Amino acid sequence: MQTIPLYRQLADHYLNAIRCGTLKVGDRMPSVRKLMQVHGVSLSTSLQLCRHLETEGWLEARPRSGYFVRQPRRARLIPAQEPTVGKLIDPAQFVGIHERVSEIISQGQRPVKCNLARATGGPALYPHQQLRSLTVSTLRRYPELLTKPISPGGNRELKAALAKRALDCGISISAEEVVITNGCIEALNLALRAVAQAGDVIAVESPTFYGLLQVLESLGMKALEIPTSPSTGISLEALELAMRTYDNIKAVVVVPHLQNPLGSIMPEQHKQRLVALCEAQQIPLIEDDSYSTLVDGDKIPTALKHWDHSGNVIFCASVHKILAPGLRVGWILGGRWQARVNMLKYAHTRYNEELSQIVAATFILSSAYDRHLRKLRSTLAQQRERTAEAIATYFPEGTRMNTPAGGVSIWVEMPPNTSSKAVFDAALEQSILVSPGLLYSNSNRFDHFLRINCGMPYTQDLDDAMRTLGRIIQHKSHLKQHIAA
Amino acid sequence: MQTIPLYRQLADHYLNAIRCGTLKVGDRMPSVRKLMQVHGVSLSTSLQLCRHLETEGWLEARPRSGYFVRQPRRARLIPAQEPTVGKLIDPAQFVGIHERVSEIISQGQRPVKCNLARATGGPALYPHQQLRSLTVSTLRRYPELLTKPISPGGNRELKAALAKRALDCGISISAEEVVITNGCIEALNLALRAVAQAGDVIAVESPTFYGLLQVLESLGMKALEIPTSPSTGISLEALELAMRTYDNIKAVVVVPHLQNPLGSIMPEQHKQRLVALCEAQQIPLIEDDSYSTLVDGDKIPTALKHWDHSGNVIFCASVHKILAPGLRVGWILGGRWQARVNMLKYAHTRYNEELSQIVAATFILSSAYDRHLRKLRSTLAQQRERTAEAIATYFPEGTRMNTPAGGVSIWVEMPPNTSSKAVFDAALEQSILVSPGLLYSNSNRFDHFLRINCGMPYTQDLDDAMRTLGRIIQHKSHLKQHIAA
Ligand SMILES: Cc1ncc(COP(=O)(O)O)c(C=O)c1O
Ligand SMILES: Cc1ncc(COP(=O)(O)O)c(C=O)c1O
Repeated sequence: MQTIPLYRQLADHYLNAIRCGTLKVGDRMPSVRKLMQVHGVSLSTSLQLCRHLETEGWLEARPRSGYFVRQPRRARLIPAQEPTVGKLIDPAQFVGIHERVSEIISQGQRPVKCNLARATGGPALYPHQQLRSLTVSTLRRYPELLTKPISPGGNRELKAALAKRALDCGISISAEEVVITNGCIEALNLALRAVAQAGDVIAVESPTFYGLLQVLESLGMKALEIPTSPSTGISLEALELAMRTYDNIKAVVVVPHLQNPLGSIMPEQHKQRLVALCEAQQIPLIEDDSYSTLVDGDKIPTALKHWDHSGNVIFCASVHKILAPGLRVGWILGGRWQARVNMLKYAHTRYNEELSQIVAATFILSSAYDRHLRKLRSTLAQQRERTAEAIATYFPEGTRMNTPAGGVSIWVEMPPNTSSKAVFDAALEQSILVSPGLLYSNSNRFDHFLRINCGMPYTQDLDDAMRTLGRIIQHKSHLKQHIAA
Repeated sequence: MQTIPLYRQLADHYLNAIRCGTLKVGDRMPSVRKLMQVHGVSLSTSLQLCRHLETEGWLEARPRSGYFVRQPRRARLIPAQEPTVGKLIDPAQFVGIHERVSEIISQGQRPVKCNLARATGGPALYPHQQLRSLTVSTLRRYPELLTKPISPGGNRELKAALAKRALDCGISISAEEVVITNGCIEALNLALRAVAQAGDVIAVESPTFYGLLQVLESLGMKALEIPTSPSTGISLEALELAMRTYDNIKAVVVVPHLQNPLGSIMPEQHKQRLVALCEAQQIPLIEDDSYSTLVDGDKIPTALKHWDHSGNVIFCASVHKILAPGLRVGWILGGRWQARVNMLKYAHTRYNEELSQIVAATFILSSAYDRHLRKLRSTLAQQRERTAEAIATYFPEGTRMNTPAGGVSIWVEMPPNTSSKAVFDAALEQSILVSPGLLYSNSNRFDHFLRINCGMPYTQDLDDAMRTLGRIIQHKSHLKQHIAA
């Protein structure tokens, strides 16, 4: 364990006070002298504490009056626009996202100085040392693990561990119902193939995770994009309208918590209504739970699956973003389609390798996992705030965004007509990788958006990159206005 | 390294002499006295040597005359029947193999005393110790391997290692062309999805690996079963006939070496003709190379891909049967469909975990790999011969089989009308798992066949199981004849 310097511990203490409103914008911070006295620390520690909070953007120094809680810059940013509910996009409108995505991804494969396109935390946020020693001890426990046939049906320890942890988000299942997959992406493939086939229409959030659009296209299914709120998630009104308009919707796919890219979180009532709506319409509901564990605070939000009593909800998740970006361990609860999901998994890739499953299982059941999650969430919260501040500081006027209550990404709306592809290209030339908005819809509606990663420690290099990115956006947005003029 | 007892070393020496015909059936073995003298060993070692070869079924003792090379029992078995070429099966004839396979597989998931249904060698045949220590050293080399994002495009070391080893079977490619998959089964999924879609007809060998039939069914594609010879593989005449009969064949899938279940090996000329035929007809040819490394002898046979000059051959393989049944590392060379295969892999399961890839890469490039392969092939050859002998000894009259020149399985034809499902059920009651013939075709043509694994050390327990199995088959085959009479 690294020891945290005293001034940092105290800074965290005051940061919490600011976050929860005990210290409000404009409030005076206790004086340096007071800090020394109250905490029994030296002058230099007190000063370090205040300066740290100043650089982090929480305090401002006023000459001869001391430090005051600052209005964060991002509070001055316009929040993201709510979607227009009445407008549905023809599901057949666009095909080819697959190639668009592939092109962007392959361009982004060269090593860059600053990768803002990821949807995970940086490696330092994950318990690599612990996982490494678990790997070694697992091999000692099962010496023939790599060379003996994989246990039929996948690893029991992991299934049991996941079933146990699922209780935390309100899901009560037996270990046998868990099917282990190669990440959440395989789970989504299996879920979609279990309930639909080529030519079918699938309702998805808009904007949505490009991976999902790509999977749909590769399966020959059509995405029907449902307007989605940056704060409360998929619009139930729009979804109901869609269900009345199209009679061939074969599934609804949603990310109820920390939607990718929006970061929206569905209110409890919305979730309950969504489950009931799909159930009433007999349309399978696929829940992508990639991020719920990363929601700020200590309570993991309740899964859609919790309200499912007929097996109409298929639940997909993975450890990718939560425990270890280097592991391809995901899982699926197939609901009514359990048997079919099992068959499809077997035909798709067989059972997963066991080593990483046992490692994940052991860690997930330990108390170290809880400690890891607490630390991960609070680190992410800090990094997210720093990134949001940087966006507010460096990005041009007209930029809009919401700061989500958890997760690893911020969805940023650039000034109108700024091309995310042009920004992507220009940023890549400066060795900065961003995720352009045009990947998140089959339409061009999000062409002036970017998804910005905030999973990395906020270093000087990162700050420089954000400043450069801000300048690029400024330039590209002007360019567009000139051309438009 | 375990040291091999002296009598075993000598036994191997004489076994080789018998195998290559230096000592022929009926020849007299050198006398015990002669053996002592020639090899400078004790009486007891000489006796042990002869008794060992006697129990192994190679020698018989004749009272007062010594030991003689025995006629192996399996030489008296009728070889398997060659297929009738003119009869094609309507590809739409049967759907439901998926469920049939799932049922058999789930029944076979309880632990059994003797598992003869596998298509791999026993764990002892694979280098678990070496792979384990490579795993540990790899984690030391890359401490953040489990927690950092996976390198885009998959692991370079493994791609390079596979490209290098591919030279041995006549394939010359660059490392970038290799796409790493979750086993050969994912490779087959990607290959089929790259060139065909639901409703299309795919020509396959008959009998064929049930996994392939299952994949086709899950993708909504139709299997057109092409008669296949137990010795020379797919019938090119039948395939040509099929191509003339059906104009919607979208791919041909073959296992040219040690076909599963037949064990057939295509002659060089056949392979060349097959590649040319598919090329001329513009029908993609998918090569499943799961077993070629297990062909007896030191020369790995030439891949179909070797003769491919237009990218019409897609090559699929894995380390599953060769290096480590516990690893899910496969690969695919997409030929003309390279870009599409890449996209599909990304949408299917993303890139594979890196740890096992690096471990496999390091081992594959070492000389330990060559040593492992030599030992694996010779151990399999011995076990295959023992198993074949047991079949010849214990199975009822009317049993037919070929002993393949490599691999881990023997395909056995039981007396006509013996139901493989009945044998499967009865064997399972005795805690013996076999792989019933009805899994290997959408028709019922192979219902009286079994695939018998010969990858495990031939112990007394295994011999007992083979005897029990023989009795079960005897019983079930009589039963059928009574009912028929
Ligand atoms: C919403 C969502 N679902 C699924 C995935 C894919 O997850 P995995 O890496 O576990 O396959 C991602 C990854 O970015 C995601 O954001
Ligand atoms: C011919 C053939 N192809 C593919 C496979 C599946 O291989 P893997 O385990 O590498 O996915 C098998 C396994 O039995 C096989 O026999």
